[in-house]
Amino acid sequence: MFGLSNATTFEVVAVWTVLLIAFLGLGYALMLRAQVLKKDKGTEKMQEVWMGIKEGAEAYLNRQLKTILPLIGVLTILLFFSVYIVPPTPEALERFSNYSPDKVKLIIGIGRAIAFVMGASFSLMVGQFGMRMAVEGNVRVASASRRSFGEALQIAYRSGTITGMLTDGLGLFGGTIIFIIFGIASPDALLGFGFGGTLLALFMRVGGGIYTKAADVGADLVGKVEAGIPEDDPRNAAVIADLVGDNVGDCAGMAADIFESYEVTIVSGLILGLALYNMTHELKWIIFPLLVRGIGVVASIIGTYLVRGGKTLEGSNAMTSINKGFYTSATISIISFALLSIFYMHEIRAFASVAVGIILALTIDELTKIYTSPDYGPVKQVAESSKTGSATLILRGLGLGFESAVWQTIVIAVTILCSILIYNGYPAVYVLYGVAMTGIGMLTLTGNNVAMDSFGPIADNANGIGELSGMDKEARRIMGHLDATGNTTKAITKGVAIGSAVIAAVSLFGSFLTDVTRVQEQMGVQESLRLFATGIRVSEPKIFIGLLIGATIPWLFSSLILNSVTRAASLIVEEVRRQFRLPGIMEGTKKPDYQRAVDICTVSAQRELIGLALIAVMSPLLVGILLGVEPLGGFLAGVIVSGQLLAVFMANAGGAWDNAKKLIEDGLYGGKGSEPHKASVVGDTVGDPLKDTAGPALNPMIKVVNLVSLLAAPILVQYKLSHPGMIITALISFIAITYAIIFSKRGSLTKKVTVK
Amino acid sequence: MFGLSNATTFEVVAVWTVLLIAFLGLGYALMLRAQVLKKDKGTEKMQEVWMGIKEGAEAYLNRQLKTILPLIGVLTILLFFSVYIVPPTPEALERFSNYSPDKVKLIIGIGRAIAFVMGASFSLMVGQFGMRMAVEGNVRVASASRRSFGEALQIAYRSGTITGMLTDGLGLFGGTIIFIIFGIASPDALLGFGFGGTLLALFMRVGGGIYTKAADVGADLVGKVEAGIPEDDPRNAAVIADLVGDNVGDCAGMAADIFESYEVTIVSGLILGLALYNMTHELKWIIFPLLVRGIGVVASIIGTYLVRGGKTLEGSNAMTSINKGFYTSATISIISFALLSIFYMHEIRAFASVAVGIILALTIDELTKIYTSPDYGPVKQVAESSKTGSATLILRGLGLGFESAVWQTIVIAVTILCSILIYNGYPAVYVLYGVAMTGIGMLTLTGNNVAMDSFGPIADNANGIGELSGMDKEARRIMGHLDATGNTTKAITKGVAIGSAVIAAVSLFGSFLTDVTRVQEQMGVQESLRLFATGIRVSEPKIFIGLLIGATIPWLFSSLILNSVTRAASLIVEEVRRQFRLPGIMEGTKKPDYQRAVDICTVSAQRELIGLALIAVMSPLLVGILLGVEPLGGFLAGVIVSGQLLAVFMANAGGAWDNAKKLIEDGLYGGKGSEPHKASVVGDTVGDPLKDTAGPALNPMIKVVNLVSLLAAPILVQYKLSHPGMIITALISFIAITYAIIFSKRGSLTKKVTVK
Repeated sequence: MFGLSNATTFEVVAVWTVLLIAFLGLGYALMLRAQVLKKDKGTEKMQEVWMGIKEGAEAYLNRQLKTILPLIGVLTILLFFSVYIVPPTPEALERFSNYSPDKVKLIIGIGRAIAFVMGASFSLMVGQFGMRMAVEGNVRVASASRRSFGEALQIAYRSGTITGMLTDGLGLFGGTIIFIIFGIASPDALLGFGFGGTLLALFMRVGGGIYTKAADVGADLVGKVEAGIPEDDPRNAAVIADLVGDNVGDCAGMAADIFESYEVTIVSGLILGLALYNMTHELKWIIFPLLVRGIGVVASIIGTYLVRGGKTLEGSNAMTSINKGFYTSATISIISFALLSIFYMHEIRAFASVAVGIILALTIDELTKIYTSPDYGPVKQVAESSKTGSATLILRGLGLGFESAVWQTIVIAVTILCSILIYNGYPAVYVLYGVAMTGIGMLTLTGNNVAMDSFGPIADNANGIGELSGMDKEARRIMGHLDATGNTTKAITKGVAIGSAVIAAVSLFGSFLTDVTRVQEQMGVQESLRLFATGIRVSEPKIFIGLLIGATIPWLFSSLILNSVTRAASLIVEEVRRQFRLPGIMEGTKKPDYQRAVDICTVSAQRELIGLALIAVMSPLLVGILLGVEPLGGFLAGVIVSGQLLAVFMANAGGAWDNAKKLIEDGLYGGKGSEPHKASVVGDTVGDPLKDTAGPALNPMIKVVNLVSLLAAPILVQYKLSHPGMIITALISFIAITYAIIFSKRGSLTKKVTVK
Repeated sequence: MFGLSNATTFEVVAVWTVLLIAFLGLGYALMLRAQVLKKDKGTEKMQEVWMGIKEGAEAYLNRQLKTILPLIGVLTILLFFSVYIVPPTPEALERFSNYSPDKVKLIIGIGRAIAFVMGASFSLMVGQFGMRMAVEGNVRVASASRRSFGEALQIAYRSGTITGMLTDGLGLFGGTIIFIIFGIASPDALLGFGFGGTLLALFMRVGGGIYTKAADVGADLVGKVEAGIPEDDPRNAAVIADLVGDNVGDCAGMAADIFESYEVTIVSGLILGLALYNMTHELKWIIFPLLVRGIGVVASIIGTYLVRGGKTLEGSNAMTSINKGFYTSATISIISFALLSIFYMHEIRAFASVAVGIILALTIDELTKIYTSPDYGPVKQVAESSKTGSATLILRGLGLGFESAVWQTIVIAVTILCSILIYNGYPAVYVLYGVAMTGIGMLTLTGNNVAMDSFGPIADNANGIGELSGMDKEARRIMGHLDATGNTTKAITKGVAIGSAVIAAVSLFGSFLTDVTRVQEQMGVQESLRLFATGIRVSEPKIFIGLLIGATIPWLFSSLILNSVTRAASLIVEEVRRQFRLPGIMEGTKKPDYQRAVDICTVSAQRELIGLALIAVMSPLLVGILLGVEPLGGFLAGVIVSGQLLAVFMANAGGAWDNAKKLIEDGLYGGKGSEPHKASVVGDTVGDPLKDTAGPALNPMIKVVNLVSLLAAPILVQYKLSHPGMIITALISFIAITYAIIFSKRGSLTKKVTVK
């Protein structure tokens, strides 16, 4: 079975059961979908507003497909033909020993290509279906809120859970099916799978992030700040774009991002598991992560189904209900993991690693709360500094963001230290396996997490529909409560997303070492000279250079994204200003042209994608070819370390400014309209693109860079810089990166965006 | 001679000549001092204002001495007794073979202690004398500006040159005399010398930075923003503190910082030179850096003396005159280096490395200009974004800062690559020596650079005295021109300071490797297991942890500093507000209590020093003891890489905001008082502590961390964590760091500062 002669019956059954669980998760998603769609969509007025959002969302999703599909096509073909440069591994020849070597080549080529398409399309599906379901859900939540708090909560949460279970189901299905088909030859296909998912997540994150913040910042600047009208005021032409943006960013972007982390942790877990299998011939290293994931999905199904609330707000609390589901899932998982570890693994180490992951997720939650929740000191201090104006408020937020990045990074360091202690005395590959298991543990409850995250934009949009369609007070109060809860759940998920990204990247970094070593072994490189023996020595000047350059990539990426957002936002500002000047708009007698603002955001977001993706994909190739494999390792380390610090800084500074503003809007220091409030609005506007665009985009970027390096490693080891193919690739990479930077900096966006 | 039997007569004469040149530099400084002091101090009104500055400066300098001296005492004693833990090296025993081993122990102990005191007191002297001379100079510049442009320019530039030549003379003297006395046993004493200078520079940088920005931000917030009165308005109680602050930060802080880079590059150059001497038995590797430095000092003397201007502003330009001096020095140096390389080194490599350093300095100048000068696109874009308010202006600046950090880091990477190419095929120690020579090349014209930098606060203060004492228009115009020129020269020096800090840190990192390897060799560690052979492998999880933690340190440091500044600034704001409320102040009939604001800044700045210094000194000890020497190497790499990016980001974002404001004040987008101007003031206020406090403080911090690691390396290699001494040290370090963080975060500053 699986090309592995020594699989026990239990193991064979276990793997097929995991596959079944994947389908179970998808079936559960379908069931919830039917439940949600059965609900009514409320009054005509509500549906009218909603159609604006829906059309905007569709326009974005369709345009995104058109931008992305050709690229996927090209990459699929490249991956297929790559088999003629990097021939099948000995493992592949062994796995498919019934076929002639030429046939195996074909099989592996097709396998790589299909795995990539699978990863890419799954990521795309999670984002696209998830966002469509969120849009379907929001109007129904608004409608239900007129009847019952419990019903509104349930529709919102279940609409979100659909995305959660898609993430779980597709992620688990992909990893398992690849292992079933390819067995010991899986790494090749797994990398393709991971790369597809990660690349798409990068697209959706970056595109979604730019869209949502261009709309949000633009709408706020010209509406709240300049014209002095409230948020979600129907006279603001960008208001629908802003509502669509919440879905595009927090739903499609975040879901694809978490899907990708979910996928990459299982990919690196399986690759490192296979490395251990090759050393020990014990299949358990591979079966364990699959089973852990399977258990997590079952636990999520049970936990998410339990979330419900009472008829009225009194005595009910959305957060408590959602937490009940979460803790149920967590309890089921932890007990099952312990049993699995004892009775199947016959050792407690595996459980320890997974448990560290769960603790890590909780610790990062806690840290995120301390630095971004209005209930704790740091945000209160930021709010207080608004008394001396926006400059001191910005400085406080920067200081807080810097500090929070320090602690979160140290928590990650301690996590890795735990792996070292757990596998004390074992070779480094065990430790890296432990880190991968920690990543898997951390993402156990992805179903619940994504549900909680998608809940945010659904509740936010329902509230917006309520505002724009003038719904009654009691329903608005329920939606207000759901919206506030959604802000909290979104913030929590964001912390987990960044933390898991770094853990996943570290285990990919580990896979890079084993992968390069494997190729070197095949090439007959002496054992003491293989990468696992020599290591990535940053004390070598060339490798230190790799480290330096790698560390710059997240900064470059962030700077280009920030430029994109400010550029796109200024287009929105101009558009809304233009419409404000039209007769009838400010008086509210004429409806503004919402669709134009939506189009501007959509076009802007898609334009910027390509350049940023080129940088993520090409920079490791360029470094790898020009400097070599070891410096490329240094480059990866640089990307991870600097990306982690920068991402957390941006996320938490942004979150703190956001909530400092909320504190003041709740009445602190003079409340809305006061000078401190104006200062806090500046802070929030600065923080928004940091926390919702640049910061989150670093998660998939870090992993794209790692996966490209892994995919390119066999080629880089085999061919020297003098090979014509390498020279051409280096040249293409260099030109592409230069083009991307110039394009992203100057961009056609400085000219007028042409919308239909 | 020098305990080196194979020194040629030329080499012996050369070394003594270099020592003579050091005295020549100091003599030149004395001569200039006499010239400046002979000049008159102007009217009584001018002297009255000036006395306020002078008293403020004296108060700061005296208080600083009181804070620092006890600490120097303690560290001197510790360093002396360290010889009983780390016995003299075989080289020391060889050098002093005439004495008994016990005597040698005493000699080395005293040597370490004296070298440390020398480094510390030289750094202190450069800062203290330099700042005193700047204060003596400014009133004389103001007075001379009534007579002649040329005279004013010359006094300002020569007052600055005094600090420059102190830096040159003392730095060169220290390095040379240590080499003359200790010969091959120099590294021990050199490290003490470097550590003393760096630690003091850290104190002066951090203290100066907090002082200057607390005063500046505080004065601006409450004066310009709240009360709407101009900068330097005599009714503002913080106005004298602000003038003193310019000296404290840009003069004392910057001079000590550059002195320390100047010193550390010669320290690491000599240590790596000695490592090459041990391998090749060629003395030239050590003599070359000394001679390069000597030539640089002579060139600086000639070049700086040539700076003079015409009688009136017409047809004269301060920047052109200063540049003439700079290019003269540069030409003399480059030609001499080429000759030295050909006729003494008998190879062109040495010259190539030094030349790379000079090119690096020019490239960084250029980059800094592109990102921070109002004549280029980036600053114009930042200014333009002020039209949509302060939030977009902040975002633009952040994006620009991120981007500039990327390019400067890549320039550093290319510089290291040059060393690799220059020493292609040689072992890594040659490459590192090349990097050290690049650092020496980069700082060749330190005399000119420091002169240019100190010129800034002198001209600024002269202008302030002019404003406060109501001087006539023509004199004010001359001082305005000098002040504007000073802003440019300051900005240029800042870029060089950061760049040289990283290059110096990289060569210290190299010294760390050779030093640990030397100790391991003495302990009989097998060659293949010594650090130079194994390298710092970030692929080992433990070392990766070191890298992660190291990367957090600059962020932690910056966050604590930013908190300190905002805290201290808010005290100033409250004080000025309080004084504004007193009768007669706003009407200008009563003089505010300037001294109280000065005292608040002085006390605040000194309070925060200790905690920050503890973090820099203790964190490498803690990591080294808990994780080991290799992870400590990873830690150092992390500190360097992340410190470089963060420092450049903060410096350039701050510089861009500053100049964007100036552009608007010069009339762009409505000029002073317009909405864009208000937005730009917010940007400037945010940028000030970033560019003048947090950013520059990272330079000495990075090197303190490296030098502590170097000093501790022999102990860390010899003793395991289980040794009681190590446990106690780890505990003390942990407690000290925790205390420092809590103190710096909560600080007694949240309570009222008590001033006399």
